[in-house]
This record gives sequence, structure tokens and C-alpha cells, in this order.
Amino acid sequence: MTDDTDETRRARAKRTLAEYHGPFGEQVIARLADVAPDFADQLVDYAFGDVYSRPGLDRRAREIATLAGLAALGNAEPQLKWHIRGALNIGITRTEVIEILSQMAIYGGFPAGVRALMAAKEVFDEIDEFATELARQDDA
Amino acid sequence: MTDDTDETRRARAKRTLAEYHGPFGEQVIARLADVAPDFADQLVDYAFGDVYSRPGLDRRAREIATLAGLAALGNAEPQLKWHIRGALNIGITRTEVIEILSQMAIYGGFPAGVRALMAAKEVFDEIDEFATELARQDDA
Amino acid sequence: MTDDTDETRRARAKRTLAEYHGPFGEQVIARLADVAPDFADQLVDYAFGDVYSRPGLDRRAREIATLAGLAALGNAEPQLKWHIRGALNIGITRTEVIEILSQMAIYGGFPAGVRALMAAKEVFDEIDEFATELARQDDA
Amino acid sequence: MTDDTDETRRARAKRTLAEYHGPFGEQVIARLADVAPDFADQLVDYAFGDVYSRPGLDRRAREIATLAGLAALGNAEPQLKWHIRGALNIGITRTEVIEILSQMAIYGGFPAGVRALMAAKEVFDEIDEFATELARQDDA
Amino acid sequence: MTDDTDETRRARAKRTLAEYHGPFGEQVIARLADVAPDFADQLVDYAFGDVYSRPGLDRRAREIATLAGLAALGNAEPQLKWHIRGALNIGITRTEVIEILSQMAIYGGFPAGVRALMAAKEVFDEIDEFATELARQDDA
Amino acid sequence: MTDDTDETRRARAKRTLAEYHGPFGEQVIARLADVAPDFADQLVDYAFGDVYSRPGLDRRAREIATLAGLAALGNAEPQLKWHIRGALNIGITRTEVIEILSQMAIYGGFPAGVRALMAAKEVFDEIDEFATELARQDDA
Repeated sequence: MTDDTDETRRARAKRTLAEYHGPFGEQVIARLADVAPDFADQLVDYAFGDVYSRPGLDRRAREIATLAGLAALGNAEPQLKWHIRGALNIGITRTEVIEILSQMAIYGGFPAGVRALMAAKEVFDEIDEFATELARQDDA
Repeated sequence: MTDDTDETRRARAKRTLAEYHGPFGEQVIARLADVAPDFADQLVDYAFGDVYSRPGLDRRAREIATLAGLAALGNAEPQLKWHIRGALNIGITRTEVIEILSQMAIYGGFPAGVRALMAAKEVFDEIDEFATELARQDDA
Repeated sequence: MTDDTDETRRARAKRTLAEYHGPFGEQVIARLADVAPDFADQLVDYAFGDVYSRPGLDRRAREIATLAGLAALGNAEPQLKWHIRGALNIGITRTEVIEILSQMAIYGGFPAGVRALMAAKEVFDEIDEFATELARQDDA
Repeated sequence: MTDDTDETRRARAKRTLAEYHGPFGEQVIARLADVAPDFADQLVDYAFGDVYSRPGLDRRAREIATLAGLAALGNAEPQLKWHIRGALNIGITRTEVIEILSQMAIYGGFPAGVRALMAAKEVFDEIDEFATELARQDDA
Repeated sequence: MTDDTDETRRARAKRTLAEYHGPFGEQVIARLADVAPDFADQLVDYAFGDVYSRPGLDRRAREIATLAGLAALGNAEPQLKWHIRGALNIGITRTEVIEILSQMAIYGGFPAGVRALMAAKEVFDEIDEFATELARQDDA
Repeated sequence: MTDDTDETRRARAKRTLAEYHGPFGEQVIARLADVAPDFADQLVDYAFGDVYSRPGLDRRAREIATLAGLAALGNAEPQLKWHIRGALNIGITRTEVIEILSQMAIYGGFPAGVRALMAAKEVFDEIDEFATELARQDDA
């Protein structure tokens, strides 16, 4: 297939990353690239070029699955917070995020569920503070 | 609230269990009840009476989350197989199951993803064999 | 059973929570309730209304089991610290806490054991500092 | 200290192993020793010579902690089954075993709790079958 | 880069897979491809085309790392057994395999270490039985 | 064996600890000994007196295995950082550390791999800052 070169895979990866995570996507990857640039590229190409961009599962379902998986694991707080932002970004509601994370207490244990919800609270608070700050600047 | 007695919670739990897992729901619980009957009741009441029956997240989303969480954990094969059946039961397709489990390799590691997919294959094969058996009996 | 309504389950849950964790119990739950109030209630009702309040295992045994489980998991530091306080609260000694956590290095690995003991040290230090502070105020 | 030589540590380890696990202790270790004899010795010396034989925590508490830790981990079935036998051996009741394992569902997740209880059922059944078989031989 | 197309990545992946796992490599992948063919390709391309084939770490070091990681995880027995074969295949000795797995008991817990060593024993026994069988056929 | 007394095991443990971790070894142990002195001794005696000092696996291989196991576990950041320093200390290069940790994303999941690499970056930065500080003092 002519168009299935690495460059295309790269472009698809970057487009899909942006689609899910907006400007925050590249920022997070940049920090990783600082220590392991090749790995950062490979991760983006694999996750977003090969997996998230596949047909067969809609975007909402993919992001629900990721929130659930990260919450169940119970030890991936930075990644969970990043994906909570991503979930809100693609239209999953705060209530839905809370329901997904709460449900994972059944599978990963209540402590994992509690930690996931606390991470959600941090993300919600950060977003609200940012919005408040923006509004204050607009008023000035 | 008058109707929020334990009996109603019980009824809601049993109805929701059946909704997700059909006749297999009670069968699995019966085996657990053989060794720990109170725990079996508490599990069903909590998971299906308190969590799965809540508004705020649709049934499809709840089952996707559970498949993802169990696959990411990577050590819950019997429960994963049970929920793969449940997912198919409520209308999630085989392709979607495969996409969800494959995606979890990103978060729980490739070995966890591979084991989840192998569990899915076993469930699909069991269902196909059962269907073939039924068809043979119909022909006879 | 007339008295087995949700309200009674709730009351039993709150009484048992207080029994194990004293005033700290409600404080921790309040923070969780800030983001997920229904889940916070369900967690307390399940853990303390259904499980910890059951006959068949004494309170000391239940708290030993919890310290051990959390230490073995190795990723539940906030919950472990909360339960170390709970354990001391119901009469388990500091030496016993250290022995339980040390033993878990066998099962969850030495890093998990070390992290659990470091968490215990933080709790002991917090308690000692609080006691010192109280004594200073009494002297004044 | 004159008596704290490796030989004494070894003897203490073997005595403590037998105290907890009876004749099954050496059998399990023998299988491990078949592939990694030095590791088998080191494991017994560490676990039973250094840890289980320490003062500061009673035998009942140590075995409760171990059942809980293994159940919470959720992936250590052979070791959990071995320790369920050990727990019964030192006087912990079947009801207590069930309560401990059920409680761990809170911390390690319900699937881990269910798998632990199923492992307990297997051990109970094995013991009962063995007793039935013995009784049959006595009758003959 | 002209030669960095997907086809070349594919070829590099297949060559590296064969280098580490010999004929067993393709066999294992074939079973996975039966349920999830795209994922099977992506896994091979990522693991062997992107990672194992990179410069910067020698083959012996890569395989030691993999044995250690899988043993520490403690729930990836099929993958661990596959990589024990791979390790022997590239010249790591049985003694070295045993030392690596034993050492992981420090980090993943003794039960994980024991299970890893039992998996090694199964692989060694399978290889020995196969060799005995071959010798018998040669004699005939 | 005359020389296999506890004292010799102790000496071997301390020598091996220093060999791998230099002066940082005793410092880390001292903090643990502050809360659990016997456990701190037992850990050092087991890990460094019994395991790391064994023949059958070279020092480089042992440290690679440990980095890999800790990275795959994904929840042992303090221990991983300590061992990254240890690895550099015995001659493993920064590039090799990055390759080992990146490879573990395959087995423990990408989030575990990312967290391990971020921990490596912290260690590298701490070392560089310390070197810069030393150079500044030399210049003064």
C-alpha cells in the first residue's frame, strides 16, 4: 500500500493524539522526549497511529476503556489525570467520568477507586481554577 | 424513601444482574454462594444493586469499562470471560471486544493484552461450538 | 427482618466506621464525598455496614488482615496510613504493625514492604508530633 | 551470640515451617528445591527462620496477615491454598478464613476476593474428600 | 529515510523475532493472529521491529531484562515460559535463568519468584523430554 | 562450614551492598533501620548476603534484572531510582538504562514505562546538578 509508509503512520498518530488530547497531547510527549526521544515517538506511533486510530471502536468507547483500565491498575495517576482531561475533551461528562472510576472500585479494589476519584477531583479543580482565572482576566 | 429497603435493593440487583448476564449470572453466583453465601449476596447487591443500576452512565459504557478494567488487571481471567459473554449479551460486537482488549495492552502491558485476547477466543469458540451443537440437534 | 432496612445498614456502617477509625473516619470520607458523594456512602455502607460489622472474625483480626492486604498491594499508601492509625486506635501495638508490614515483604516484595514501613514511620511521627504539640499547649 | 549461627537459623526455620504447615511444608519446598535448591533453602531460612519465628506478633496474627496479603495480591493461588491449609492447621476456623478472604475483596477487588474464596473451597473440598476416604478405609 | 517504510519495519520485526525465539516465535504469534490478526502484527512490529532491534543494548541484556520483568509481574506465565525458551535460545544458561528468576523474588515477592521458577522447571523438563524423545528416535 | 556464620553473611552482605550502591547503600538502609532495624538487617542480609553475592550471574546481569523488574512492577519508584544510581555506579550506561526501561513498557504497560523513564530523568538531573555544583565549588 503506497500510503502506509512510516510518515503516514506518524501523521495519523499526531492527528489522533491531537484529536483526543488537544494541545496537552504534545506537551506531555515533549517531557518524555526530553529523556527518551525515540521511545516517545514509538509510543505515540503505536498508541495513536496503530491503536486509537483504528476503525472498529468509536472514540467514546476507546476513551472509556482507557479511563477504566488506568483506574483499575491503580498505580498510573499521571496517565489517569491526562486521560480524564482527554475524556472531557472528547465530550464524556464529569458525571460519566465519576461513574466509570467508581465502578472500577469493584475490579481494582476500593483504594484504587478512591485514588482515581481523587485524581478526577484534582483535574476538575484545575480546570475550574483555570476557567476562573480566565474569567478574571476577561473582566479586567 | 419507602421503597429503598434492602428487599428493593436485592430485587434491583437481581434484575440488573440478569439484564447484563442473562441466565449465566445466577449460575456463576451460585458457585460462589456454595462457599460464601453472604459474600455472594453482598457482591451482587453492591455491584448490581448499587453500581451497575445507577443512572449517569449507559449500559454499553459500563460493560466497556469492565472489560477494560479486567483486561488491564491481567489476572482475572474467569471474571473477564464472564464479562465478555455479558458484553456480547448486551450488544457489544466481537470486533469491539477485540478492539477494547487489544487497546488495554497499552496500559496493562502486551502480555495482559494477549492473555485477554486468548480468553476472548475461548469464549467465542465456546459460543460457536454451542451454536453448532444446537444446529446439529435441530437437524436431527 | 424489620430492622434490616437501608437506614439500619447506614447506622451500623457509621457506628463501625467510628469504632475502627474514630473521628478520622468521617473526615476521610468527607473528602471523597466532595467529588463522589454516592460512592462515598456506598463504600462506607459496604465496607463497614456489610463487612467489618459481620460476626465470624474479631476486630483485631480484621484490622490485621487489612494492614496486610494494603501492604502487599504496595500501591495504596493513603489507605495504608489511614488503617495504620485505625490499627493503633483499636489496640494493635506499633511493634505489631511493624511485624505485620515487614512480613508482607515476603509476599508483595521487599520494595512494597519498605514503602509500607516508611508509611508507618510517617504515621508514628505525625502522632508523636501531635502529642508533643498537645503537651506544649498544656504546659503553656 | 554463640547460638546465632547459620545452623541454628536453619533449625529454627525448619521447626517454624513444621509448626505452621505440618508435613506439607517440607513437601512443597522439596518441589521447589528440585529446580532451585539454594533458593529453596534461602526462602525457608528467610521466611521461617527470620520472620515467622520472630517475637512481637503471635502465630494467629501472622497467618491472618499472610492469608490477607496473598488474597489481596490476587495472583498467588498455589501459595494461598498452601497457607489456607496452614491457617486451618494452626487453629484458624473455616469461617474465619472465609471472612478474611471476603474482606480482601474491598482492597484487592471483588475478582481477587472471588478467586481467593474459590481457592478456599478447593482446599476445604480436598480436606473433606481425604477425611471421607480415610473413614471409608477405617470401615473396611 | 527511504528504507524506513512499513515493509522494512515488518522485515526487521520478523528477523528479530526469529533471532530471539527461533521457530517458536511465529508459532506463538499464529495463535494470537487467529483471534486478533492486526494486533498480532502490531505487537510483533512494535516489540521486535521497534524495540528489540534497537542498538544501545545487547541481545543478552534485553532478554535478561524481559525474564526479570515478566517474573516480577508474577502473572504472565505463558509469556515467561516463552521467554525462558528464548533466553536459552540466545545462549543464556539454565543457571543464569534460575539466578535471574530467584533474584526477582526480592522485588515481586517470594510467591512470584516461586511461580517463575516452577515455570522454568516446566520449560527445562519439556526440553529434556523432547531431547530424550529425539535420541530414542535416532536409536531406532 | 566454619566461615558460614551469621557474621560472615553479614560482612558479605555489607561488602556487596557497597559494591553495588556505594555510600548511598548504607544511607538508604539507615532510614529504614530508623523504623524497623531488624527488618533492615534482614533485608540487607538476604538481598546482598544471599542473592546478589551469589556466583552464577554476573553483576551487570543482576543489576539489569533489577532495573527491569522494578520498572515492570510500576509502583516502586524510590527503589527504582536507587537502583538506577546503582546501575550507573557499576558501569551500566545512561543509554542502556533508557533502553531497559523503555523495553519494560512492553511488559508492564506504557504508563509503567513512562514513569520509569521519568524517574531516570530525575536521577540523571540530580547527578548532573550535583556535578555542576561540585564544579562551581572547584572554580571558587
